[in-house]
Amino acid sequence: MSGNSLDPYSDRYAGRVRGMTASEIRALFAVASRPEVVSLAGGMPYLPALPMDAVGSMMGELVSASGAATLQYGSGQGQLGLRELICDVMALEGVSGSPDDVVVTVGSQQALDIVSRVFLDPGDVVLAEGPSYVGALGTFAASEAEVVHVPMDGGGLIPAALASALERLRADGRRAKFLYTVPNYHNPAGVTLALDRRTEILALAERYDLLVLEDNPYGLLGFSGDPVPALRSFDDHRVIYLGSFSKTFAPGLRVGWVLAPHAVREKLVLVSEAQVLCPPTYNQFAVAEYLRTQPWLEQVKVFREIYRERRDAMLEALGAMMPAGCTWTRPEGGFYVWLTLPEGVDSKVMQPRGLHARVAYVPGIGFYADGQGRRDMRLSYCFPPPDRIREGIRRLAGVVEEEIELRATFLGAAGSWQAHERHNVSADAPGPDLA
Amino acid sequence: MSGNSLDPYSDRYAGRVRGMTASEIRALFAVASRPEVVSLAGGMPYLPALPMDAVGSMMGELVSASGAATLQYGSGQGQLGLRELICDVMALEGVSGSPDDVVVTVGSQQALDIVSRVFLDPGDVVLAEGPSYVGALGTFAASEAEVVHVPMDGGGLIPAALASALERLRADGRRAKFLYTVPNYHNPAGVTLALDRRTEILALAERYDLLVLEDNPYGLLGFSGDPVPALRSFDDHRVIYLGSFSKTFAPGLRVGWVLAPHAVREKLVLVSEAQVLCPPTYNQFAVAEYLRTQPWLEQVKVFREIYRERRDAMLEALGAMMPAGCTWTRPEGGFYVWLTLPEGVDSKVMQPRGLHARVAYVPGIGFYADGQGRRDMRLSYCFPPPDRIREGIRRLAGVVEEEIELRATFLGAAGSWQAHERHNVSADAPGPDLA
Repeated sequence: MSGNSLDPYSDRYAGRVRGMTASEIRALFAVASRPEVVSLAGGMPYLPALPMDAVGSMMGELVSASGAATLQYGSGQGQLGLRELICDVMALEGVSGSPDDVVVTVGSQQALDIVSRVFLDPGDVVLAEGPSYVGALGTFAASEAEVVHVPMDGGGLIPAALASALERLRADGRRAKFLYTVPNYHNPAGVTLALDRRTEILALAERYDLLVLEDNPYGLLGFSGDPVPALRSFDDHRVIYLGSFSKTFAPGLRVGWVLAPHAVREKLVLVSEAQVLCPPTYNQFAVAEYLRTQPWLEQVKVFREIYRERRDAMLEALGAMMPAGCTWTRPEGGFYVWLTLPEGVDSKVMQPRGLHARVAYVPGIGFYADGQGRRDMRLSYCFPPPDRIREGIRRLAGVVEEEIELRATFLGAAGSWQAHERHNVSADAPGPDLA
Repeated sequence: MSGNSLDPYSDRYAGRVRGMTASEIRALFAVASRPEVVSLAGGMPYLPALPMDAVGSMMGELVSASGAATLQYGSGQGQLGLRELICDVMALEGVSGSPDDVVVTVGSQQALDIVSRVFLDPGDVVLAEGPSYVGALGTFAASEAEVVHVPMDGGGLIPAALASALERLRADGRRAKFLYTVPNYHNPAGVTLALDRRTEILALAERYDLLVLEDNPYGLLGFSGDPVPALRSFDDHRVIYLGSFSKTFAPGLRVGWVLAPHAVREKLVLVSEAQVLCPPTYNQFAVAEYLRTQPWLEQVKVFREIYRERRDAMLEALGAMMPAGCTWTRPEGGFYVWLTLPEGVDSKVMQPRGLHARVAYVPGIGFYADGQGRRDMRLSYCFPPPDRIREGIRRLAGVVEEEIELRATFLGAAGSWQAHERHNVSADAPGPDLA
């Protein structure tokens, strides 16, 4: 075999995978899953709240009563019955779409992937919030696209910043293939796009002839009032909408969907067929049966109450314990708080100290394609119970305080922050003083 | 919106999808599924033979007893427990591999897709049997690869033909990224690669520094004796092996796998994560539980006996009824017979007449990337019971006879076969004489 000594296949790979390496988040999760660690890192829905006996009988019955259909190959677009129900679910957020324009996918991750394959040539530009969902960044990277981040504030993506980005691209003679956005209870930022900004952003999309990829897995998990109308509810020819049953029912079934203008939908089905032939038939029957026969909206309310209580626990603990100079977002739904550390404290460098103190988070740098986010981190409140969340924040606050003190000491000793940074970068594992 | 009048998004698509159109096989299946049609077109396993009550209780229990795990997110590589069992399954065909080198996929179609994404840049060459599996051709086309077909005979892929193809590529300064092969009970050709050819082909792979992608969904469905040893059983660094539970258990769960050299396996996991995050967790538990607790190998024997009886029915009917000049393969396992019509009869042109006579098959042209296969067709015996198979072949034989007579008439009248061909190409729907 030729190739280099580490990987004898290296001279055979396609260009797109040569630089691919394992995500740091994956390595982190291996450590974070140890029982002594409070993990504020993962984004797993709290499944123990599901009525497992009822769901179990329902799923067994799908095989004993009609296994010859539910275990067989299905259509590439997905079953019509489920696509009709998906339209009912989207209607809750103001979206009206035809089942014929829905493609069922293997989780909404596959929806991201097939949209990327339909639109992205290497070198194409994608606009995305900064920070942005790490799974989407991975897919855009696999498509060799260039991600241009657009800043957010407490009201979500900033329309003026989007206008500037579009203007800069135009000046460079480039065009973004689409804007990728998670408008509701953003992963990882925990903010929600204000209603008036939704129409502003769509007006910009019209002015700059931009498509919008709206990813909305958390839309029904808001803690107060009715769901905010989806971007897709205002525009059915510029917005491609992605949904998922991973947060409202069960991620292990991997059932998501995309609603797209008809011509785009046709391409999406072809690309999906080349990838998986058809999404899992049985899983589609299971979700459809769950929506038809179980009190699924009541169950969503149960989830919301659980997550609201945990969000409250996290915000209270952050307010009571985090040192001065830290700021964080106040999510109105979903799973995540975005925390920003004081100037000069690096969340990635601090991570081993966090793990040593038995608390895990995801450093902010993973949510940017361009190296931003060093002062930031994502904290999840979806899975641990409130007491564990408080304990996790207590540990985290201690680590951040130590980091601030250490920084003051180094700044005092070396007179420059760079000296400290070099020290930390070389000490990626816990140093002897912490071991 | 700009773009053309038919598709306003056409100027935004990535290069790879601009020329994609719906497969003709998909359109065919819509017609073929009508109850009055005998479909010899599909490749659906005969699921009514599964013990649905036992499988149903098993699958319900997986949720009621451990839904918090079986319905949750899982690892991108797939569950270790299932990967261990997959190694036991592969051992039945002489393959020894480590669970660490197995990646669980959404059916083996996704395995084809991730292998393609890891290795294929646009313009790369893939060697493949002629004819070849249509789903693989679709994936290679989506990767913008060039497929070079290598002929087969009753003993499968012809080593001398492979050597010539490799030599021609070398002379052109090109190298094939891999050879794609279905060695056992080939889809669509119904032939099996002779044992001595397996080592010959691997010797060629060594001489020309070629990777081999061995796709083996039907390996356990042989009608006589023990399974033939897989190519992978002779070579663990040049062969990437694909397997599937779609034919031995249930395609609607979409569980397949790839076994690859370690360095390649790492890339495959990264690509799969960017596509689907993780394969469906629940489906992996279901397959693992089925393998652990149900008499799955006995069930495979049940399937084999069903398919053998149907294969016999098809071969007998073909022998008794098909007009002179037709030839066909004699499968020793799997789902398919490959039929070649007399010189000058075009299976694609004849297809509407077949559907009018209420029999469906897949024209051979769909199994080639280069327009070959016009005289050929794929006939499936896996799903219809023997009586229906005989009736289907009776109808098909009638259509072929008519086609031969028609051809003789046209040849007599116009003195040239081209005149006939033009007539048929313009009459893609049944003409008035057949309506």
